Amino acid sequence: MALMREKHDGRLGGPKSIGPRSVRLWLRLLSCSMVVEKRLRRRFEAHHNTTLPRFDVMAALERAPDGLTMGELSRKLLVSNGNVTGLVRQLEAQGHVRAAAPANDRRASIVALTDAGRATFAELAASHHAWLRAILAHMAPDRQELLFELLGELRDSIEAEETGETP
Amino acid sequence: MALMREKHDGRLGGPKSIGPRSVRLWLRLLSCSMVVEKRLRRRFEAHHNTTLPRFDVMAALERAPDGLTMGELSRKLLVSNGNVTGLVRQLEAQGHVRAAAPANDRRASIVALTDAGRATFAELAASHHAWLRAILAHMAPDRQELLFELLGELRDSIEAEETGETP
Repeated sequence: MALMREKHDGRLGGPKSIGPRSVRLWLRLLSCSMVVEKRLRRRFEAHHNTTLPRFDVMAALERAPDGLTMGELSRKLLVSNGNVTGLVRQLEAQGHVRAAAPANDRRASIVALTDAGRATFAELAASHHAWLRAILAHMAPDRQELLFELLGELRDSIEAEETGETP
Repeated sequence: MALMREKHDGRLGGPKSIGPRSVRLWLRLLSCSMVVEKRLRRRFEAHHNTTLPRFDVMAALERAPDGLTMGELSRKLLVSNGNVTGLVRQLEAQGHVRAAAPANDRRASIVALTDAGRATFAELAASHHAWLRAILAHMAPDRQELLFELLGELRDSIEAEETGETP
């Protein structure tokens, strides 16, 4: 669904003249995000025969050495339990995660990376990092830092709007 | 699929300490983009009983007064022809677009907004703009400008990487 956003004449972010500032800013943010995501997705498939969602599940589990329930995993990834269940089954079949159910209740089972999964994740994370570094290589480190800072301000503004604070 | 990216303890962008700079920057960009997109999607559904992909199709058509072929539309939106066909059919059923096929070939038909579609789009675009303005309201205009500029540098870096220039 994210891929539905408009590409604007093939240039990321589109011409500067389109629409009011807030819309221009949003479209440029969205195109950067979409294009990078698409590139990462393609490379994970080409180089590691895996998918971005599986990588995301593994990343969440890597940060939770004691494992997570399906519900916790689902909340961390902002997706439905159903989707997470499918991904966890794929990762289980590959030997990357194990799910130990305390009773007969699959939903309550604790999912964790296996040792093999942890080793594979380290390789995936190294590629992920290298690709992002290459994508950012034409931007000076201090400009990257400034962008990070400004995205922090954007994040705060997004959060303030949701909680209904007046500016 | 975009929704699979990790949420990091419920804070957009996650804790500052996670991972190398390029990864932190990417995760923060991605969470901002995901959260705003989700918010827009929810509001389009709640207030206009429409979807973000339909809005995107209408936005692309609004900029093409002579209409677009399915192929052109699909390329502008970075999605498959099949998905675009479904969206165009929905919009046709609502009277928002018309598709005129020169022959019996649906793929070659020219899709354009109807007058009713153009009027509806104007309302949707006004909401879209108002929501984005509100989302950005806690960020000073000069900081928004700076963010826009830095996202332009990011876009250039993304494009340079794809074409394989060395930094």
